[in-house]
Amino acid sequence: MDSSLTPEQRVESLVAAMTLAEKLAQLGGVWDREGGTGGNVAPMEDVFGYSQPFEVGARHGIGHLTRVFGTRPVTPEEGMERLAELQQNLKDSTRLGVPALAHEECLTGFTTLGATVFPTPLAWAATYDPGLVEEMAAAIGTSLRSVGVHQGLAPVLDVVRDHRWGRVEETMGEDPYLVGTLGSAYVRGLQSAGVIATLKHFAGYSASRSGRNHGPVSMGLSELADVVLPPFEMAVRAAGAGSVMNSYSDVDGVPSAADPWLLTDVLRNDWGFTGTVVSDYWSVSFLETMHRVAATPGEAAAAALAAGIDVELPDTRCFGDELAGLIADGRVDEDLVDRAVRRVLHQKLQLGLLDADWSPRPPTTRVDLDPPDHRALARRIAEASVVLLANPEGALPIRPDLRRIALLGPCADDPRAFLGCYSYPNHVLPDHPDLGLGVPVPSVLEALRSDLPEAVISHVGGCSISTDDRSAIPRAVAAAAVADLAIVVVGDQAGLFGRGTSGEGCDVEDLRLPGVQAELVTAVLDTGTPTVLLVVSGRPYALGDFADRAVAVVQAFFPGEEGGPALAGVLTGRTVPSGKLPVQVPARAGGQPHTYLHALLGEPDLGVSSLDGRPLYPFGHGLSYTTFAYSDLRLSRTQVDPDSETEISCLVRNTGNCAGTEVAQLYVSHPVARVARPVLQLAGYARVTLDPGEGSRVAFQLPARRTAYTDRHYRRLVDPGVVTVLVGPSSADLPLRGELCIR
Amino acid sequence: MDSSLTPEQRVESLVAAMTLAEKLAQLGGVWDREGGTGGNVAPMEDVFGYSQPFEVGARHGIGHLTRVFGTRPVTPEEGMERLAELQQNLKDSTRLGVPALAHEECLTGFTTLGATVFPTPLAWAATYDPGLVEEMAAAIGTSLRSVGVHQGLAPVLDVVRDHRWGRVEETMGEDPYLVGTLGSAYVRGLQSAGVIATLKHFAGYSASRSGRNHGPVSMGLSELADVVLPPFEMAVRAAGAGSVMNSYSDVDGVPSAADPWLLTDVLRNDWGFTGTVVSDYWSVSFLETMHRVAATPGEAAAAALAAGIDVELPDTRCFGDELAGLIADGRVDEDLVDRAVRRVLHQKLQLGLLDADWSPRPPTTRVDLDPPDHRALARRIAEASVVLLANPEGALPIRPDLRRIALLGPCADDPRAFLGCYSYPNHVLPDHPDLGLGVPVPSVLEALRSDLPEAVISHVGGCSISTDDRSAIPRAVAAAAVADLAIVVVGDQAGLFGRGTSGEGCDVEDLRLPGVQAELVTAVLDTGTPTVLLVVSGRPYALGDFADRAVAVVQAFFPGEEGGPALAGVLTGRTVPSGKLPVQVPARAGGQPHTYLHALLGEPDLGVSSLDGRPLYPFGHGLSYTTFAYSDLRLSRTQVDPDSETEISCLVRNTGNCAGTEVAQLYVSHPVARVARPVLQLAGYARVTLDPGEGSRVAFQLPARRTAYTDRHYRRLVDPGVVTVLVGPSSADLPLRGELCIR
Repeated sequence: MDSSLTPEQRVESLVAAMTLAEKLAQLGGVWDREGGTGGNVAPMEDVFGYSQPFEVGARHGIGHLTRVFGTRPVTPEEGMERLAELQQNLKDSTRLGVPALAHEECLTGFTTLGATVFPTPLAWAATYDPGLVEEMAAAIGTSLRSVGVHQGLAPVLDVVRDHRWGRVEETMGEDPYLVGTLGSAYVRGLQSAGVIATLKHFAGYSASRSGRNHGPVSMGLSELADVVLPPFEMAVRAAGAGSVMNSYSDVDGVPSAADPWLLTDVLRNDWGFTGTVVSDYWSVSFLETMHRVAATPGEAAAAALAAGIDVELPDTRCFGDELAGLIADGRVDEDLVDRAVRRVLHQKLQLGLLDADWSPRPPTTRVDLDPPDHRALARRIAEASVVLLANPEGALPIRPDLRRIALLGPCADDPRAFLGCYSYPNHVLPDHPDLGLGVPVPSVLEALRSDLPEAVISHVGGCSISTDDRSAIPRAVAAAAVADLAIVVVGDQAGLFGRGTSGEGCDVEDLRLPGVQAELVTAVLDTGTPTVLLVVSGRPYALGDFADRAVAVVQAFFPGEEGGPALAGVLTGRTVPSGKLPVQVPARAGGQPHTYLHALLGEPDLGVSSLDGRPLYPFGHGLSYTTFAYSDLRLSRTQVDPDSETEISCLVRNTGNCAGTEVAQLYVSHPVARVARPVLQLAGYARVTLDPGEGSRVAFQLPARRTAYTDRHYRRLVDPGVVTVLVGPSSADLPLRGELCIR
Repeated sequence: MDSSLTPEQRVESLVAAMTLAEKLAQLGGVWDREGGTGGNVAPMEDVFGYSQPFEVGARHGIGHLTRVFGTRPVTPEEGMERLAELQQNLKDSTRLGVPALAHEECLTGFTTLGATVFPTPLAWAATYDPGLVEEMAAAIGTSLRSVGVHQGLAPVLDVVRDHRWGRVEETMGEDPYLVGTLGSAYVRGLQSAGVIATLKHFAGYSASRSGRNHGPVSMGLSELADVVLPPFEMAVRAAGAGSVMNSYSDVDGVPSAADPWLLTDVLRNDWGFTGTVVSDYWSVSFLETMHRVAATPGEAAAAALAAGIDVELPDTRCFGDELAGLIADGRVDEDLVDRAVRRVLHQKLQLGLLDADWSPRPPTTRVDLDPPDHRALARRIAEASVVLLANPEGALPIRPDLRRIALLGPCADDPRAFLGCYSYPNHVLPDHPDLGLGVPVPSVLEALRSDLPEAVISHVGGCSISTDDRSAIPRAVAAAAVADLAIVVVGDQAGLFGRGTSGEGCDVEDLRLPGVQAELVTAVLDTGTPTVLLVVSGRPYALGDFADRAVAVVQAFFPGEEGGPALAGVLTGRTVPSGKLPVQVPARAGGQPHTYLHALLGEPDLGVSSLDGRPLYPFGHGLSYTTFAYSDLRLSRTQVDPDSETEISCLVRNTGNCAGTEVAQLYVSHPVARVARPVLQLAGYARVTLDPGEGSRVAFQLPARRTAYTDRHYRRLVDPGVVTVLVGPSSADLPLRGELCIR
């Protein structure tokens, strides 16, 4: 192709040269799953059988290659070889020789055999540290890019609306600002390595009714605009995300995959998005078979294309011949096809795929997908993500002279229990038990024995994570009874579609600990031995029945391959905990959904309802081995314009005996508004590390527009009037309070 | 007043004669609760203290007199005397002498001492019999009118969206058409007696998040239009309801009390409503204190008045001096006051209150509020409302030769447990334990002993409804062990604001039977004695853990003062059961909310979620002591216009051995639609009584517009295309299927 042309001209000339079949080919994927995938990695995968061999499916070219590395277990070298072979085939055997974009899952690291398994997003969120998230995503991007992958299907920007939903572990919690800032950091990191980030799931998925995966979403436009969309807008406008994936769900009856308002008016016209919108796996087909808004695959394709879906994934079922038929009949405008093709080709051009010297083979042939620096980074994130929920008597860190420790619970010595559902070990390897985990994952037991060589650490699992087998509980009780300290490690096993207690399709009826783990905890507490409760899970669980009987309570969210050493570090004091909750921890298992983000009438203690939904540990809560004091709130101004920014600062002082890191939090609240508003809402946060006695001024920049909300006419505006600003260590402990008057 | 004037002229001349203070007085209530009410009959009643004596509060007149009969216990004669005294005071001591509208609660009958307690609305709904409901409401209206009451605060037209909500018992179930038809019957009945019906709660209240009373409602405009509003529209357009009461909640941030779109655009401009909109108790104040959309009581009044609230109830806190101040300042247009005053005065005029010969004393001075014909009607409704859920071995009716029956459970001999939360015995009398129930309420135990004089019926409660006292369970087990048949009667105690297990403010975390009743049931089943499970409750409870172990399962919803004999009648076969479920009965306690009205992606068995929310007994289900067969579906036409009506009929035949009544049900379904639609939706029902072997053609009139739904542009339309029509005995058993093509 003539390289003197502008990118736009190069794309236009290619579009002009294409037949309809060649254009449509650019709008679909091919999933090379000959031999099967186990049928386990996408919803209803078994319904949509493998259609045709690659050579047939890609005879006119192809838009995307689906998960060459993330399907059957392959070494990086095998994957690179296969990918190069497929790309070479496209170069050689199609008329125009346009290569495909290769995409993979990469939420907690590259979802392939032997790649670093980082902590789950809910754990990143507990760090409140965008810098760490960006560094991690850059590392993930580097790995992807090194083997020839162009696009990663992450991050998940869904804001948690119901903790029962299985995919809570994949999110960054309950607050749109937290999700938006950390999600943007992920996008910047991944794209800094030359890999396109994919924002998902656009939009509303996390509010599926009763937490049932794919369930309909009852939600109005204001809640959508104020809670669900902001993280996406931030990641598009401020971080320049290159791709967006639709949500499976419908919102108030309209399936996202067929919603031109969402995919075009909002995303492109309002926010200026110029990338591609790719369909979540089989969600174009779902317009026909599930939402029943299309009578045929072709009609489903037409609705999706018109709405703004550019690429059908993972395979081409609707966008191919079915759509071609409707275009031939004049029922679909070919301009819509051209619009999508331009977007796909523009990305291929930007990635160099259309360059004459592009080679299907990456520069290297051998790669290490779990190098020491990635593992060290996984450790740092895991350490920063551990949340100390309660430690009233200073039982933690474990006293060095403690001799007999009983380490109990099904998660104490099970490495898989520390990995998220999109980690390769939990995503694909359950179908290949001979392959192990692909990477070393030390358990807490191993790590604690290594950290405390003098101690006698006994271990009894006591029960499994999900079954109702109680037979080993007495042995756990016996071990606890003779110990100086018991540590019970309970939580989740991530999996897909019912094969785990957390993860995609693993929704729960209520927030009881899975299986009989609550009985194990109670039995151990009943021994009278001081007991630390350590929850390692993908969602918050109701701990009200036993938290106040434990000497300490620690919450970690799937902490990844270095989770064992990270948790041992917090238990022993090698690491001073600094994580804060990105989701509240409920006292009681029922009464869902309930998150911190609710209006006053949603408050549980007004005397109008017998329900007491007050959380056991509030959003933003997290303790340290030292203490911090807040004082001296200052506002750089108190009368502000809607376009201005205010610096809000305060003094944070380490008032304890060891160095520690605090996450100071800024919340805003409208005393009076045009509509019912959340009681308060996170508007800023900052990590600060302080030596004992040291104080530091912590500053938050608050643009007035961050207080914007949607009025009853669906205008999102900065409302003139008083806004209360509150600063402190958690959403329920805000000692500093000021007022900002917006003119 | 000159009686030659038209009604409009009479109202206008009165408005013209009024000072601002006199006008505002017409827009408020006075609640004569000197001496207190127990603080128990309205939310946060204690917060809004009794403001001023009647003579002060009503010195300029008054719009409404609040619950003269329904507050402190009074005999009808005392109430009539007090009401007449207050009205006489208004006639004599105010400048214009305009009497007040006296309103009372009347949901399950006149909420006053000694009045008939009819079954709760969920029980009416189980009858699927608008004729019975209309007859009942006419009886209630006659009682109200006979003592001088003008307006009744019923019916509740909220469509159930979450069974955990405490007020489910006050509704007519999960389906808008069922609620709308039965609610319209109630309106016609009440208003036939000259009493204004009040539709409540307009709109969205029942979808409060997680079933928490007053919680925010996450809902889009389509769901609102298709599920929540239709019953109100039916009761306004077809039944001519005279008044509407707002919902406490907000929908997508907009509180109903301050929503001009809802209260004016939809209600008046679209539906042609000409009556009054009255505020739910203190909901104008809640705009300030709860929703925080108003800074002062005056601003709250201004917002409510502008939206379309005409009368502030129960007292005048915001609409009086506070609003006057804003009008004096020119911040509120007095025309808005005039608009509301006209509506109030028009109703007073229509009721004859402005007639020269109007007397504050009703024609009679002695009334019987629980006359035999009302009691007989209460019995008929109760009998028709009992739902036989399962009877696989024909254990019911009880064999006449059965000798030893153990009647167990806390609801077997507790008359209060059969009355709803708006019955006077449960609403007010708990604060006056010396007064008993005010009306005779035979228990099941009494009724069964009366029906089966030959049998030896032992009785042990076994446990209480709500406490965790298990001490009497062994005695119940012992009684069951030596019996030929055990009948366990479990369920709810209705109450208000946490003083019951069902009722306003008595929301629950999940759908487990309250207290330890599940343990009682299990213990009785474990004896091996054939056991009938009889649930008498205000909401459906999860019965999956034991239903298949019982020889029969019967569900009743608070059946009222004649519930005991009605239930005994079904147990003994004196009555052949004919009720059908207006709500589904879940198998499992968690996973809420879930009702039958959901799109395909909300279906629980698609393999995309580990949740199995399939109901144990589906919506519309209900058995008889005989059986029915459906055949020969006929459609009067299959190609129809949007404005046309189709007769859909089928043959129903009694194929069993006794006479019985079947409720045949018609559902519609869109195979393909413009948005995701419920899998199916009730569109008709008909009761038919048949002798053994008798068959009858049952016909449903289906206007095409009953298939209307709201598209993505918020247009509610009859969608051209195919509609599937399905007929059968329940939503999950629809043997007859046809197609209607809408042009």
